[in-house]
Amino acid sequence: MDDTQRAREKLEQAAALLGRFDLDLWLTFVQETSLRRDPALELIYPHDVTWHSAFLVSRSGERLALLGRHDADSARRLGIFTQVEAYDQSIRPALVEALRRLAPATVGLNISRNDPAADGLTVGLKLVLDDILHEAGIGPERVRPAEDFLASLRGRKTEAEVQAIRRAVSLSETLLRQVGAVVRPGMSERALAAWLHDRMAEQRLEPAWPLDANPLVNTGPESELGHAGPSDLTVQPGHLVHFDFGVRADGYCADLQRMWYVPEAGESAPPDDVLHVWNVVRGALLAGAAALRPGARGWEVDQAARAYLLERGQPEYMHAFGHHLGRATHDGATVLGPRWERYGQTPYGVVEAGNVFAIELEVPVPGRGSISLEEDVLVTEHGLDWLSAPQTELWMPPHEP
Amino acid sequence: MDDTQRAREKLEQAAALLGRFDLDLWLTFVQETSLRRDPALELIYPHDVTWHSAFLVSRSGERLALLGRHDADSARRLGIFTQVEAYDQSIRPALVEALRRLAPATVGLNISRNDPAADGLTVGLKLVLDDILHEAGIGPERVRPAEDFLASLRGRKTEAEVQAIRRAVSLSETLLRQVGAVVRPGMSERALAAWLHDRMAEQRLEPAWPLDANPLVNTGPESELGHAGPSDLTVQPGHLVHFDFGVRADGYCADLQRMWYVPEAGESAPPDDVLHVWNVVRGALLAGAAALRPGARGWEVDQAARAYLLERGQPEYMHAFGHHLGRATHDGATVLGPRWERYGQTPYGVVEAGNVFAIELEVPVPGRGSISLEEDVLVTEHGLDWLSAPQTELWMPPHEP
Repeated sequence: MDDTQRAREKLEQAAALLGRFDLDLWLTFVQETSLRRDPALELIYPHDVTWHSAFLVSRSGERLALLGRHDADSARRLGIFTQVEAYDQSIRPALVEALRRLAPATVGLNISRNDPAADGLTVGLKLVLDDILHEAGIGPERVRPAEDFLASLRGRKTEAEVQAIRRAVSLSETLLRQVGAVVRPGMSERALAAWLHDRMAEQRLEPAWPLDANPLVNTGPESELGHAGPSDLTVQPGHLVHFDFGVRADGYCADLQRMWYVPEAGESAPPDDVLHVWNVVRGALLAGAAALRPGARGWEVDQAARAYLLERGQPEYMHAFGHHLGRATHDGATVLGPRWERYGQTPYGVVEAGNVFAIELEVPVPGRGSISLEEDVLVTEHGLDWLSAPQTELWMPPHEP
Repeated sequence: MDDTQRAREKLEQAAALLGRFDLDLWLTFVQETSLRRDPALELIYPHDVTWHSAFLVSRSGERLALLGRHDADSARRLGIFTQVEAYDQSIRPALVEALRRLAPATVGLNISRNDPAADGLTVGLKLVLDDILHEAGIGPERVRPAEDFLASLRGRKTEAEVQAIRRAVSLSETLLRQVGAVVRPGMSERALAAWLHDRMAEQRLEPAWPLDANPLVNTGPESELGHAGPSDLTVQPGHLVHFDFGVRADGYCADLQRMWYVPEAGESAPPDDVLHVWNVVRGALLAGAAALRPGARGWEVDQAARAYLLERGQPEYMHAFGHHLGRATHDGATVLGPRWERYGQTPYGVVEAGNVFAIELEVPVPGRGSISLEEDVLVTEHGLDWLSAPQTELWMPPHEP
């Protein structure tokens, strides 16, 4: 299953979904995508484009690509568009003509106040496009944000997409197991990250997010959990070691967190204060997972995990319980998060079968570090399909020889 | 010289440039930058951000970063901002307060109809920001596109930036020399690309643009020059072999094109039809280079190269003669291109000292392929500084043993 086939499936899915969202046409308008990505384009087109380019999917099943001369050959080779047109001097005449011919009553654009994955159209490109729409006789009353349509298109993973995520998860799990076996007192966060980077380079694995923060490594209570990269802090007995890591396979991401406890002299198991928090974190993760089913609102899932923690007197995590996982680690659309202003409308979205989420939360253990877990799951009509083998007990690195 | 130092230099340059463009404040507003990059942010901040984040540079020299809790630590560690603020629930209160305190008469945003590198603000983010600006008492009459400011900021490379580009160019030239030595009749475009990919993996080199089209490899007359990736066409005697290739070093790009002629049995030099076009292409490249100096308009430089070709009865290239080179291969701002609609206002920009351009053009040779060259140059007050060692003669792969 390759890039082309995945793009073809998403184009077909797009045409089929348009009617449900009262859209006659979905129009993606881009330029210099290596500089300024549109995350929606990547679902249906596996290459970068240089000049102004337009990708049109109509409810009637037409799939048009209008591109600069130098990019058109790449589009033609794919064989997934009903029409590919190349231009030299301006995209305007060809795009105006296509819009006049299709005469859509409603046009959806990649605009969203809430969902970054559905908000790829920039202000400058919108100004250029407005002139073209006007010339084609399409007034602003026929144009609308395609955010709901895009949330479904992006969120409902096809089989080929799930297969790619499974592969990314499996590769990431293997490396996480391996790095756990080399954790030793005295090793720095940076050294552990470098060890994973070496393995990735050997196997030519791409990171799911940039290497400066992938893996995140946190050891002990002084290391701040978050998005900051590994530091010079070193592993100490009696401390926790945490990894947040994922590779990309066939363009799709894994996002996992795994935990180790480094025993002090004479310890053969983690101490009670650590195990107590471990159990609460696992319990909260499972409580959230139990609420994660088709039809649930994002905030309801978060609430299930958050309430579990609060009822046990633990501090609440200051982020969302879960996020979509796909071509991006934070794959837009519905967030399984609290109804905080910075999440906008995204926690009000509805979970659908075919969604893949990364679910996560953490609780600090005073003097030890934090326990933070993350698993990747597929939502089905018949319950959760765990794509990762969940970490069910706190691991300890092998003893020194 | 590291990422942090480069970002510090650009922040200082930004504060110094604002006055020239009648801006009191430059405001970059972003969210989920791994999904939706803002090319302007990358100049001043070397990490991704997750939640809504604002970066403010004032004419008075203040440099503020407001970020989500989990990203703030990365920003603080850099030590390049006068103030870093973290938030949990919404960026609005902190950003409103900062804007009220700074009370700028004019605010520049990352918006441009013309320059993709200056057009990172999306429509959805602009809607969120408009509400915040309104609450801070800043009306739309005080807000403007920062495109001219950004063209100067991005285009005037600091010493550290030039140093990074030199390194990328040098690494790319070495690999291009090496791949030329393995070109043999019967090898496919794909095999030659794979050879370069192997060397890049061994040396852990990042590509300047995605690997599916880096290198571009074209052999013979049937291979279409453009942005499409390498095909299964094979090298034949009597044909030209063309590479368009570049690696990235310290975040900065090289973009070079190099040419080989594969001799037929008994040939010890390229035939006259090939050499004639070679000389015209080199001549046109040098004619354009001669016109590339501070104060020239982009289209004037293109015109010098284009006219040279046309006067010699050769077909004109259907693209721009040159583009900025920096963090991106097509680094925005002034394009050394014809006054065609798709280039918008960019060919009317003025070349400045400190600009780095990739200059390029091609001419087909019937029955042989195309001759296409590209060199990387730094514009100074005292003439061009060639960052690449220009290809001054058409190379031939070593003979079979």
